[in-house]
Amino acid sequence: MSPAERAPRPAGVLAPVLTPFGADLAPDAGRLLRHCRWLLAQGCAGLAVFGTTSEANSLSVEEKEALLDALVEGGIDPSRLLPGTGACALTDAVRLTRRAVQRGCAGVLMLPPFYYKAVSEDGLFRSFAEVIERVGDDRLRVYLYHIPPVAQVPIGPGLIERLLRAYPKAVAGIKDSSGDWNNTRMLLDGFAARGFDVFAGSERFLLDNLRGGGAGCITATANVNPGAIARLAREWRGPEADAQQAGLNAVRGAVEKVPVIAGLKEIVAHHAADPAWRTVRPPLSGLAPAQAEGLLSSLAALGFSMPGLR
Amino acid sequence: MSPAERAPRPAGVLAPVLTPFGADLAPDAGRLLRHCRWLLAQGCAGLAVFGTTSEANSLSVEEKEALLDALVEGGIDPSRLLPGTGACALTDAVRLTRRAVQRGCAGVLMLPPFYYKAVSEDGLFRSFAEVIERVGDDRLRVYLYHIPPVAQVPIGPGLIERLLRAYPKAVAGIKDSSGDWNNTRMLLDGFAARGFDVFAGSERFLLDNLRGGGAGCITATANVNPGAIARLAREWRGPEADAQQAGLNAVRGAVEKVPVIAGLKEIVAHHAADPAWRTVRPPLSGLAPAQAEGLLSSLAALGFSMPGLR
Repeated sequence: MSPAERAPRPAGVLAPVLTPFGADLAPDAGRLLRHCRWLLAQGCAGLAVFGTTSEANSLSVEEKEALLDALVEGGIDPSRLLPGTGACALTDAVRLTRRAVQRGCAGVLMLPPFYYKAVSEDGLFRSFAEVIERVGDDRLRVYLYHIPPVAQVPIGPGLIERLLRAYPKAVAGIKDSSGDWNNTRMLLDGFAARGFDVFAGSERFLLDNLRGGGAGCITATANVNPGAIARLAREWRGPEADAQQAGLNAVRGAVEKVPVIAGLKEIVAHHAADPAWRTVRPPLSGLAPAQAEGLLSSLAALGFSMPGLR
Repeated sequence: MSPAERAPRPAGVLAPVLTPFGADLAPDAGRLLRHCRWLLAQGCAGLAVFGTTSEANSLSVEEKEALLDALVEGGIDPSRLLPGTGACALTDAVRLTRRAVQRGCAGVLMLPPFYYKAVSEDGLFRSFAEVIERVGDDRLRVYLYHIPPVAQVPIGPGLIERLLRAYPKAVAGIKDSSGDWNNTRMLLDGFAARGFDVFAGSERFLLDNLRGGGAGCITATANVNPGAIARLAREWRGPEADAQQAGLNAVRGAVEKVPVIAGLKEIVAHHAADPAWRTVRPPLSGLAPAQAEGLLSSLAALGFSMPGLR
C-alpha cells in the first residue's frame, strides 16, 4: 500500500472515550456509540477508545473486540479511531492490534506491558517489536503511550530512538501523559522533525505543544469539553489563543479536584440526564454526593455546557 | 459441600512455578508438567502456578486456561494447585477463577487489579467481592496477593478485615510479598488466629513466619531449591532450624544478585541441561553471559544441586 492510499494521520484533539457500563457492569455499546458520534460532531479529530480514561484495562480483550466491532458496524469511520491495544500479555496486545488494523483503524495507542517494573530498555524494545512483527501489516501505525504516573513503566527517548530506527513506518508518534512539559518539549525537540507525532496527554499543554510542533492532544477532558478544546486546536495561531487556553485550564481545574474518570462520568450523566453514565467498573468508585455537587456547581459557575448531548 | 469434604488447606512450601516457553514464545505445557512433577517430588506442598515468577501477567487468559487444563489432565492433583487468577479486568479474573474452582484447585492466589494506582479501599473491596460473588461457588478459597513492589496496589489490613467479615469462608489467607517482616508480623498478629493463612513471599521469612503462626511460604526460589526449603518447613521446630534458614538465605542471596526470574530459568536450564528453559517472554530479558556465569559459580560454591532434575 503506497503512502498516498493511507488515511491522513490523526491531528488535533482526540478523546480517550469514556466506556459506559450497564448495572451489571457490562460495557454498553449503544451508549458508547452515541457518545462517539457526539464527540466527532463537536469537533474531535479522532477517538482514542480503550485508553486509561476508558477503563480499558478493566475490560477483557473480548469485550474490547466486541466494542470495536460495534463502533465500526455502527458507522464510526475507522480512520477516526485510535484504539488502545497495549497489554501486559504479548498475545493480548498482538490480538487486539491485529483486529484494529483489520478494522481499518488510523492507528493504535500502545501502552508498554505494565506489570513488571524496572524492566530493561531491551525488554521493552522486544515487547513492541514482537507486536509489530507479529501483526506484520504495512497499515499498522503505532502511537506509544507514555503514562508513568499510572503504568509506572516509562517510554524514554532511548527506546523511542531504537523503535524509530527499526520500524520507521510503523512507529508514528506518542501520547505523553507524563504531566511534565519538559518531557514533552524533549520529545518535540528530539523527534517531531522526523515525522513523529507528539500528542500532549492533557489540554493544559495543547497550545505549547502546537507552538512547539506537536500534533495535538489526547485528553480525558475532551469527553466533556470537546468543542472548546477542538476550537483552540483550530485557532491556535489566532489572537485569542492564550485566552482560550486559560478557559480550558479553568474547566480542567474543576474536573481535577475529583477522581477524573468518575468525575467525567458524573458530568456526562448530569448533562445527558442519564444516570446510567455514572457507573464505573471496580477498582474505580463513583463520586460521593458532595463531590458530585461541588464539581457540577464549579462547572456551572464557569458557564460550562455540553451542547447537543441530550 | 461440608467442610469435611474439602481438601486440606495448603501449608508448607509452595512454588510459583516458572513457565517455560518455546522459541516462538508460546508456553510449553510439556516442560511445565515435568517441572511441576519434580517440584512435588522434592517436597513442595503445592504449586502456585501463574504467579509473578511464572510471568503469568505476560500470558493471556486463554493461555493460562490451556496450561491449567494440561496440568490437571497430565495428572497433577488439583488439590495441590493454587493458580494466580487476579487480573486488571474484572471479567478476566472471574473467568479464570471460575475455571480454577471447576478444575478442583485448592484455591486461587488473587492479585488486586493493578493498572489504576491509589484506588480506594472501597474500590478494591468491590473488585474482590465481585469476583467472589460472580464465581458464586462454596468451594472457592481466595488467597490475597500483596506484592506492592510490583503491583503498586497494596492490600492493607482494613481491606482484609472487610473481606473477612463479608466472606469468611471464601477468604482463606494471603501471600505477603512486601519484603517487610513488620507487615507479615502485623498480618500474623491481626488475622492468623482467625484461620487466615499467612504465607511469606520469600523463604527468608519462613522460619520467623512459622514461629509466628504462619502457614509457610510461596517463594520464587522454590523453583530451584525446593528440597531444602521444604525440609525447613517440616523441621522448623528442630535444633537445626536456624542453621537451615541460614543455608536457604545463602542460596537466595546468590539468586537475588541477578534479575530473579531470568536467573531461576538459567539455573533450571543449566541443571536440566536444557537450554530451552532460558527463554523469557518480553518485557523480561535473559541474563547476560557474565551474569549467568557468576550466578552458577556462586551456587556451585555453596554446594547447590538440583537432584533428580534430569
